[in-house]
Amino acid sequence: MKKTIVTGIKPTGKVHLGNYIGAIKPALELAKNKDYQPVYFIADYHGLTKIHNGEELRDLSYGIAATWIALGLDPAQFIFYRQSDVPEIFELNWILSCFASKGLLNRAHAYKSMVDANQQAGRDPDTGVNIGLFTYPVLMAADILLFKSSLVPVGKDQQQHVEIARDIAEVFNKAYGDTFHLPTPKIEKDSSVILGLDGRKMSKSYNNTIPLFEESKKLKKLINKIKTDSLPPEAPKDPDSSTIFSLYKQFAEEAETKDFHDRLLKGIGWGEAKQELFQVMDRFLSEPREKYHELISSPAQLDDILTAGADKARNIAAPFLKEIRGKVGL
Amino acid sequence: MKKTIVTGIKPTGKVHLGNYIGAIKPALELAKNKDYQPVYFIADYHGLTKIHNGEELRDLSYGIAATWIALGLDPAQFIFYRQSDVPEIFELNWILSCFASKGLLNRAHAYKSMVDANQQAGRDPDTGVNIGLFTYPVLMAADILLFKSSLVPVGKDQQQHVEIARDIAEVFNKAYGDTFHLPTPKIEKDSSVILGLDGRKMSKSYNNTIPLFEESKKLKKLINKIKTDSLPPEAPKDPDSSTIFSLYKQFAEEAETKDFHDRLLKGIGWGEAKQELFQVMDRFLSEPREKYHELISSPAQLDDILTAGADKARNIAAPFLKEIRGKVGL
Repeated sequence: MKKTIVTGIKPTGKVHLGNYIGAIKPALELAKNKDYQPVYFIADYHGLTKIHNGEELRDLSYGIAATWIALGLDPAQFIFYRQSDVPEIFELNWILSCFASKGLLNRAHAYKSMVDANQQAGRDPDTGVNIGLFTYPVLMAADILLFKSSLVPVGKDQQQHVEIARDIAEVFNKAYGDTFHLPTPKIEKDSSVILGLDGRKMSKSYNNTIPLFEESKKLKKLINKIKTDSLPPEAPKDPDSSTIFSLYKQFAEEAETKDFHDRLLKGIGWGEAKQELFQVMDRFLSEPREKYHELISSPAQLDDILTAGADKARNIAAPFLKEIRGKVGL
Repeated sequence: MKKTIVTGIKPTGKVHLGNYIGAIKPALELAKNKDYQPVYFIADYHGLTKIHNGEELRDLSYGIAATWIALGLDPAQFIFYRQSDVPEIFELNWILSCFASKGLLNRAHAYKSMVDANQQAGRDPDTGVNIGLFTYPVLMAADILLFKSSLVPVGKDQQQHVEIARDIAEVFNKAYGDTFHLPTPKIEKDSSVILGLDGRKMSKSYNNTIPLFEESKKLKKLINKIKTDSLPPEAPKDPDSSTIFSLYKQFAEEAETKDFHDRLLKGIGWGEAKQELFQVMDRFLSEPREKYHELISSPAQLDDILTAGADKARNIAAPFLKEIRGKVGL
């Protein structure tokens, strides 16, 4: 039997190169393993903990769906759905609440860092903290446990959430007998940091990102803005400290990458290097970009895909929830 | 248009006279007002915060349903359902979580009294507190707000929960425009305390209760156990300090009550008084008792009634949840 891997994708702003290389690409790679059944979902109800604007949340959700499909997520192979289309998750969320110790959530890193920030600012520790923010590890446990997930790929900062899900599952199993599968976190290596236009980590908060689906002309312009040193064209360049090379290798063939590496060492001008980076990026991105724009301009098409995905998810979730309800006496 | 009154009934143990007189009777009286649409439900998922035994929770839920119907709740006039049969409540519970400030729940009386008890015992403040216990005012807000309740009859100790529901509703309405109706608590007078066999308040924890549906013989025996003073039969008795009179008036006609009152003042023996109390109680209870036993032995019949009630509830809940989802961007 295939092992289920569950991944929730939070609705965030315009997807940039850092998101693609750091998160989307490895998640799509992982799903190529034929031993796995990928269950990937748009965590729109997690988004509601922070986004209190209807249009914004809706647009972000469609944006995520279009991005991932454009980049190769095959809805026929994946179970790919919007969290909000699977009501069973929210009923299980309540059930699990009754088995999640409050002390466990008091110690959750994400919550503690909100409390720390408040205390440092001299505010009440819970200022601005809503119950959704405080209890979202329980909802995440429902996301994971409802699909009997074996593996949950997470960054190091999310490892604790998988441990919370395990803890809740164990408390429940102890009361009612073996019911939930205990998930294992699959810690993703904190791979090479993707650098932004100014040489710092690419991040929305630094305003140094390259949006993933920028049109060709604008993409070229942005690449030309990447900060480089002022060595003359013929001087040898160090590929491993170069933002340009770090991006190039993500989009080029292996042979191309090797060749580019050698030529940087020998010495080529930054202008020429940027031109080549643009070419491999634009070659890779032109098709997904077109697909993305096609999808995003057709919400009905996205709805069809996501509704079909929700049907697949509910076919798993509904009978399992029925079993759980029976055990707790409902 | 009728005003909606919402009442949740928690699954608790065997129903006794104190429950009937203090809660069930006034709730059924209130529903006779033709201006109200009563929405009464079995709060089985609230019960799950404490009852982690499947068989127990199931039996208690059926027991409540049978009790209320036997005592006159008309499923055709009421919207009467099991909370767990209305999944919309749990999705709304999550939505409201994202608008409920954690500080508000930190100050909830029921939670604070758990913390106090832990601290007095020298334990960690959150020992034994699960997230369901901590957040149940949010679920209660979902119970109330989903049905656009105007009035929520509550004891004084529950008034704060209605205020929490109002607060959450106001935060949501501020973000998305007028959506939720603000409920008003209808504080029930803390009516005459029902005294138990030993003269203290009738309560399971004092082990001094008279179960409501005890068979005739046993009921008679229990009534004979009611503690009285040792005045001789002919001595005048004070009706207002008498457990026997306080029970009698709950089951007798007005004229009978007046007559019994007068005779106590003049002086009748406690044995005779107990015999008369038994007669009016047994007269009132024999039919409900029979109905209760008939229902409790036929879970399929109860399921039919409750499922039909859930259909009525979902006919209201589903379109309203759809409207709410649209506003938040789902």
